Amino acid sequence: MAQKPSIPKGTRDFNAEEVAKRSYIMETIKEQFQIFGFQPIETPSFENSETLMGKYGDEGDRLIFKILNSGDYFKEIKHKLSEAGVIVVDFYKAMDVIINKLADINSENYNTRIKQFILESNIDNNRSSDRILSFFIDYKDDIINILQNNENKVRETLFVFYYTAYLMDSDILDSKKASSLISEKALRYDLTVPFARYVVQHQNDIEFPFKRYQMQPVWRADRPQKGRFREFYQCDADVVGSKSLFQEVEFVQLYDAVFSALKLEGVTIKINNRKILSGIAEVIGAQDKLIDFTVALDKLDKIGEEKVKEEMRGKGISEDGITKLQPLFTLKGDFGDQIESLKSILSTSEIGLKGIEELEFINTAISNLKLKTATLQLDVTLARGLNYYTGAIFEVSVPEGVKMGSIGGGGRYDDLTSIFGKPDTSGVGISFGLDRIYLVLEELNLFPSTIAESTKVLFINFGDKEALFSLGAVTKLRQANVKAELFPDAAVSGKQMKKQMNYANRRNIPFVVIMGEEELKSEVFTLKNMVSGEQQKLEFNALLNVLK
Amino acid sequence: MAQKPSIPKGTRDFNAEEVAKRSYIMETIKEQFQIFGFQPIETPSFENSETLMGKYGDEGDRLIFKILNSGDYFKEIKHKLSEAGVIVVDFYKAMDVIINKLADINSENYNTRIKQFILESNIDNNRSSDRILSFFIDYKDDIINILQNNENKVRETLFVFYYTAYLMDSDILDSKKASSLISEKALRYDLTVPFARYVVQHQNDIEFPFKRYQMQPVWRADRPQKGRFREFYQCDADVVGSKSLFQEVEFVQLYDAVFSALKLEGVTIKINNRKILSGIAEVIGAQDKLIDFTVALDKLDKIGEEKVKEEMRGKGISEDGITKLQPLFTLKGDFGDQIESLKSILSTSEIGLKGIEELEFINTAISNLKLKTATLQLDVTLARGLNYYTGAIFEVSVPEGVKMGSIGGGGRYDDLTSIFGKPDTSGVGISFGLDRIYLVLEELNLFPSTIAESTKVLFINFGDKEALFSLGAVTKLRQANVKAELFPDAAVSGKQMKKQMNYANRRNIPFVVIMGEEELKSEVFTLKNMVSGEQQKLEFNALLNVLK
Repeated sequence: MAQKPSIPKGTRDFNAEEVAKRSYIMETIKEQFQIFGFQPIETPSFENSETLMGKYGDEGDRLIFKILNSGDYFKEIKHKLSEAGVIVVDFYKAMDVIINKLADINSENYNTRIKQFILESNIDNNRSSDRILSFFIDYKDDIINILQNNENKVRETLFVFYYTAYLMDSDILDSKKASSLISEKALRYDLTVPFARYVVQHQNDIEFPFKRYQMQPVWRADRPQKGRFREFYQCDADVVGSKSLFQEVEFVQLYDAVFSALKLEGVTIKINNRKILSGIAEVIGAQDKLIDFTVALDKLDKIGEEKVKEEMRGKGISEDGITKLQPLFTLKGDFGDQIESLKSILSTSEIGLKGIEELEFINTAISNLKLKTATLQLDVTLARGLNYYTGAIFEVSVPEGVKMGSIGGGGRYDDLTSIFGKPDTSGVGISFGLDRIYLVLEELNLFPSTIAESTKVLFINFGDKEALFSLGAVTKLRQANVKAELFPDAAVSGKQMKKQMNYANRRNIPFVVIMGEEELKSEVFTLKNMVSGEQQKLEFNALLNVLK
Repeated sequence: MAQKPSIPKGTRDFNAEEVAKRSYIMETIKEQFQIFGFQPIETPSFENSETLMGKYGDEGDRLIFKILNSGDYFKEIKHKLSEAGVIVVDFYKAMDVIINKLADINSENYNTRIKQFILESNIDNNRSSDRILSFFIDYKDDIINILQNNENKVRETLFVFYYTAYLMDSDILDSKKASSLISEKALRYDLTVPFARYVVQHQNDIEFPFKRYQMQPVWRADRPQKGRFREFYQCDADVVGSKSLFQEVEFVQLYDAVFSALKLEGVTIKINNRKILSGIAEVIGAQDKLIDFTVALDKLDKIGEEKVKEEMRGKGISEDGITKLQPLFTLKGDFGDQIESLKSILSTSEIGLKGIEELEFINTAISNLKLKTATLQLDVTLARGLNYYTGAIFEVSVPEGVKMGSIGGGGRYDDLTSIFGKPDTSGVGISFGLDRIYLVLEELNLFPSTIAESTKVLFINFGDKEALFSLGAVTKLRQANVKAELFPDAAVSGKQMKKQMNYANRRNIPFVVIMGEEELKSEVFTLKNMVSGEQQKLEFNALLNVLK
């Protein structure tokens, strides 16, 4: 292999520092998940295709990575093509008859005549003659054109047309439809559907309410771009089996606890409720335009009140409805004030008032319990995953001054497991955006400075005798949990010793021990601080004390 | 979806306890890796197919999971089949001529006549007529048979035969050869090849010797059976860039350190050296039978001396050679004694003596440094990964009395990165068999008893007012790192309260707090020990002290 090796687009290698930083975030999240009583599960990287397909919409299905069956995966395709080969023979038979009677065919009598000629061609197999007939009927205009304008090349032209239009464009080789013939498994696209599958499959072993967390990679065949990868981790916590709003309260606390533990202070936890959006749609008489309406409303920050109204008019929302929305454009004040405005807008909508009641419950509890560093904020424009969530909707935005999309989100979904045959199991959950949190911590310089520390001390190697003695000391240091290394090769010149010192420097190892012939005799260790350059001679216990 | 959801064969779901136990093993290994100075890297789950294919032999290639290209992955296949469709038309032309002249064909003049008739059929496209000619020549006997024995069905029979034998069995739809047309990526099969790719790709950013560890899942389309999975973790530590034998010494120490930390005492670290096996083969004049010879020797424990000799004779190893091997069958005593016997066998083999020298170096160092709980043992029959390793070979076996294959293995490979264009980079590494270690710890009851502990205390929920107060206490407990939960739904009857108690029991939560109306008034918490049944009334600080 001559070319430089590379990795697939949209994937990443992580070096030691990146692994350490990613682990730091994941361990911090995991610790809080556990303190809040969530239990870990893990599911396989690939699922049966039927578990995943059809759960994410057409666009999602397209982005699922499918795994080719092992062994002779073309077997079924070949079988189908081979059946089609038999039809090719029959097609020739019919074509012979038809071409001999070309003079009898015109566009008025086409269907009747073709049917008759196919009958006359004595094809044994009914399925075959039916398929040939539907070919002639489906492509009538093209075929008449070929029959009338190709003189002595009618046979070839017609056959190639048949082969391309009918056989090649048939389902047999349709990339979308043939997937299930050559692939039975697919890489998971998210953690939510596998979780739903897990809950249904193991329902008899699970105590409900079931609080689980899961931190595993997922894969999407999306077009890679800055910050969007084809393999990335999701970090999810969900509870299924209870409708209690205390769970929404705890998820707000959990976001606060995790971001506080990461020292990422001042995040905003935005909350909305699907029922409020439904209520507003109801009040303005646009129940059927819920999505159009929320998409427009979502742009308020960016394009302003007038343009939002314009868009709504364009989508057919009435002037009367838009007037009723007016208070929404000027929602001001704290959570409580905004709730009051919403109450006046939604006074006639039962579902809207239910949404307000839920929000008030959560807000009251959080005001009472207090958050450490985050702020809870009502955001009526928040509509993520609208088709999916049925109650609370969450999204976390970074502190002001940092440019970054949401670093977390979630909500309540009332019927996730019904797709696998277990209805009426309400769930609510949140997730953390690992890659974005990483970028924010990097930008704000919030990773602990100790994170890049790896090995504490490197013993320079002056030859087998010295090295063996050094390895004895290294072994004892390691047993005391000091990260220690011996350079494996002997330095037989000053230049080589310098190389070993440089190795320590480049790897950010803060100390080296020089254990030459002289030190070996006296059994003392010369410890050099690689930052200050300071050197001291120490017996082993003193050495251990410095390095511990 | 009516059927019960399931997961692909050979894959597993892990519940909370299993995740905790697996994490315990992985964290213990990781800690020792770091103490020994190894740095983590991570590589993508899938690599470009050309990175993996051809690196594991034919059998390995077959077991690699391939990922179907996104989008219209059949495009190239269709293009080729469509080209073949043109040939079908030309085939019909040739067939018409040939069938009209059947009387002129016999098996003597077959080749000449067929060639002539194909010329006469005026096929425009040379490639097409060449392919048709080779079809008629390749399948001469079958075709003569068809021509002579099918009377009025010659055309159909011949065409179906062509379609099946030539088109369907061509490379176009050969599952092995077509993979590269529909799949460009594959799931990693091990961590070693991706590591080699990583080293070459990032060589300018790496300080050599490079000590890396990697713990990630790998995938193999193997037939699943007890203890063999299609998705499993590998835990590898390797050093590349130095030939120093101190590294082999440190790997022996690393195995000892990890298994001691896991309290799995008494494992045997078996060691051998490829050079010794080469030396023995040389001495008995069977250099070309190295694999046959080691396969036979490997069975000594199971089938005994005589049967091993029989097998060697069967593989063509000379009687003289077998006599020279005699001391090998009766190798006795400790490491040093065995080395002495080997010296006498290998006295005439330079490479064999080099192997002995390496083993002695490692053994002397280990005797000097001492192992904590493991034993180092010479095993001349050890030959794992023979085509791969060039020096030391390691394998770890479980303490006597436990039935389990090896739980770790490794060795030195001198030329791993040359496949990616970086020659002369010696490497040595070991790996840990997570799934087997898990089973052994389970069998010997060595998992810490605290491992299944999750939540420490559950607050029974008696209604919104009590629950909100409880959640305040839960919040404070969590801030003190106590894993605490509030049952989300209110118990409005004695039966429902009992249900919450049962929930705590089934989840092994050792304490519950009862915080009813009365407790709320007095702000004291009734703490119940779920094991002893004992109850006490405590103020918050006292509660925290008990639970901390």
